[in-house]
Amino acid sequence: MNSELSSLQVQDIGEQGLLERLQRFCPPEIIGDDAAVLSTEPGQSLVVTTDVLVDGVHFSELTTSGEDAGWRAVAANLSDIAAMGATPLGITVGLGLPGDVAVSWVEQLYQGMTQCLQKYNTSIVGGDIVRSPTTTIAISAFGQVNPSRVIRRNQAKVGDAIVVTGVHGGSAAGLQLLLHSELGQSLSESDSVCVAPKSAGGILPPASFAPSGLALLLSADRTVLIHAHQRPKPRLDVLPVLWEILNSHTPHSVAGMDSSDGLADAVVQICRASGVGAVIECTQIPLPTQFNHWLTQEQALEYALYGGEDFELVLCLPKEQAYGLVQQLGEGAAIVGKITDGSTVILHDQTKEYPDQVLNLDRGFQHFHR
Amino acid sequence: MNSELSSLQVQDIGEQGLLERLQRFCPPEIIGDDAAVLSTEPGQSLVVTTDVLVDGVHFSELTTSGEDAGWRAVAANLSDIAAMGATPLGITVGLGLPGDVAVSWVEQLYQGMTQCLQKYNTSIVGGDIVRSPTTTIAISAFGQVNPSRVIRRNQAKVGDAIVVTGVHGGSAAGLQLLLHSELGQSLSESDSVCVAPKSAGGILPPASFAPSGLALLLSADRTVLIHAHQRPKPRLDVLPVLWEILNSHTPHSVAGMDSSDGLADAVVQICRASGVGAVIECTQIPLPTQFNHWLTQEQALEYALYGGEDFELVLCLPKEQAYGLVQQLGEGAAIVGKITDGSTVILHDQTKEYPDQVLNLDRGFQHFHR
Repeated sequence: MNSELSSLQVQDIGEQGLLERLQRFCPPEIIGDDAAVLSTEPGQSLVVTTDVLVDGVHFSELTTSGEDAGWRAVAANLSDIAAMGATPLGITVGLGLPGDVAVSWVEQLYQGMTQCLQKYNTSIVGGDIVRSPTTTIAISAFGQVNPSRVIRRNQAKVGDAIVVTGVHGGSAAGLQLLLHSELGQSLSESDSVCVAPKSAGGILPPASFAPSGLALLLSADRTVLIHAHQRPKPRLDVLPVLWEILNSHTPHSVAGMDSSDGLADAVVQICRASGVGAVIECTQIPLPTQFNHWLTQEQALEYALYGGEDFELVLCLPKEQAYGLVQQLGEGAAIVGKITDGSTVILHDQTKEYPDQVLNLDRGFQHFHR
Repeated sequence: MNSELSSLQVQDIGEQGLLERLQRFCPPEIIGDDAAVLSTEPGQSLVVTTDVLVDGVHFSELTTSGEDAGWRAVAANLSDIAAMGATPLGITVGLGLPGDVAVSWVEQLYQGMTQCLQKYNTSIVGGDIVRSPTTTIAISAFGQVNPSRVIRRNQAKVGDAIVVTGVHGGSAAGLQLLLHSELGQSLSESDSVCVAPKSAGGILPPASFAPSGLALLLSADRTVLIHAHQRPKPRLDVLPVLWEILNSHTPHSVAGMDSSDGLADAVVQICRASGVGAVIECTQIPLPTQFNHWLTQEQALEYALYGGEDFELVLCLPKEQAYGLVQQLGEGAAIVGKITDGSTVILHDQTKEYPDQVLNLDRGFQHFHR
């Protein structure tokens, strides 16, 4: 890209100029009315979800290119659609922009959004672009679902197996690698290994985490983890597999949500909504293989349980069907525990190295608190 | 409200605390999953629209209480739904908030939103609340429409009458009264009349407008105009009347949009999309009666054509049906012109006091420009 193009700012071309440049990312038939019209299939219910992402809070130019910010914003919303058992119909994009934002950044944002949308056969169907002191991305996603196949949090039953559809912790670890640029640079420059500072021990919250301990991380592994953060995949692909397995059993039953706020949050939320408890077996939680020679087990679990943004599905279903699902999905899918009566969620270690821990939401991310 | 309550800030109670307070504004059945599930009627298409409102750009504590900001945000979105010929199914609300925003302001915002939603039998069905340096309200609205009744901009036909569903200019005039607090105060204190400074003449853009000329405005009239700004009504009520009139004629035809960016913008947009021109008869544009002894005809037209946010519908349909519609609607509805061949939109004065003017979008509000 030449420098003249990349230095062009939003205020140089105005709202109309920006809209004209962005229209190529939208299907032509939806442009030009007060709202978009979408067709839904007969007998399907509508699913809607919305997310707001703020510069400096949810993304940052330090760690996220326009393309990655766009991909991640879309992936988070499509993950919510998948978590309801629905297939996407489209998204709307509300954008707040300071006048001095580079036009090229906005175009990259739309590029990243459409890359993710195209992968899941859907598109931007509407939007609004306004002036704001703070770059803000508000996405609403729409999907449709057969009403008998809605996946809710409050349907977990005692005895259900708890399935995760993939590895956990990679996204948060990737973010830390991006934030600790001294680590990142030494790696990319030497293209070899990273020796991180020694940990103070104990399980640290991700916000205060600094990689430590065993501390050998290959450059290729670093790339994989950063990619997990920058390009998470909404697990819409899980749904056809799930329905095929559930259809061969009657009556079927499934509860679930996505793990956008971490695996611990997902299990606790499902248990709360369903009025049940759970036991999670910590040795069964699937972790990125890249953690193996880099993190202690405690650190790895910390990322997996509390890191968030892995955007896997956490599903509760009868044991036999859970086995079938994990087998079909492969690639990191696993049964990590079971639903129990009572109301506590216990993290158990079958190697007995650690005592049982009760998981709750207190460690979850709380915005606003001083 | 006691001062302890009203001084409580968002950062004092955190995201969870705020969510708990706001849940009372949402139907209980939609809380607790990754996304909301809505039922649509068989054979209906889905309509989606989104708006982003930013503190200091689209609303301000100077002119807008939390309740009014909420009402206006919802009204703007429902107006887009109405402009497509659809009926609302619900909205999602994405909120970006600085930590020092008063909890009472946020509650008032939701109060205003639900007041407007309830009036049109719909509700908040989902949302997201995040930390942001700038108070930002992102609303997406969903509606359903019989596919044969979608109102599009590109369907205007030569010979169609142009109907507006109500008076124009009131909202922009109300905003000016709020911004010129010296006018407002002298009025509310004396409870009588306001003599505004003399105009420099000519048609001024609303942003630089200062009331002038005849300049007698009763306090009650001021209240009506401010109310038009603070509590605009989306014209969902027009639709059943329209369908009844159109159903008695086959085949029916209607084009349209709302006048959220001003009457001039609406007519020009419809003409552009339809590849036609129009003549607007300026003496036929319905104005608030409150303008009568206060504004010159030029000033009044300025507000009506370019002021915006009146949220009326601008509809193009065959003359006979247009007469029927205006008669049924009453209260300010009028035929203001007709669709012509060609591509120019002409403002005509049948009293011949003013020469014909060509209307275009250059006067429309352009964000971002320096």
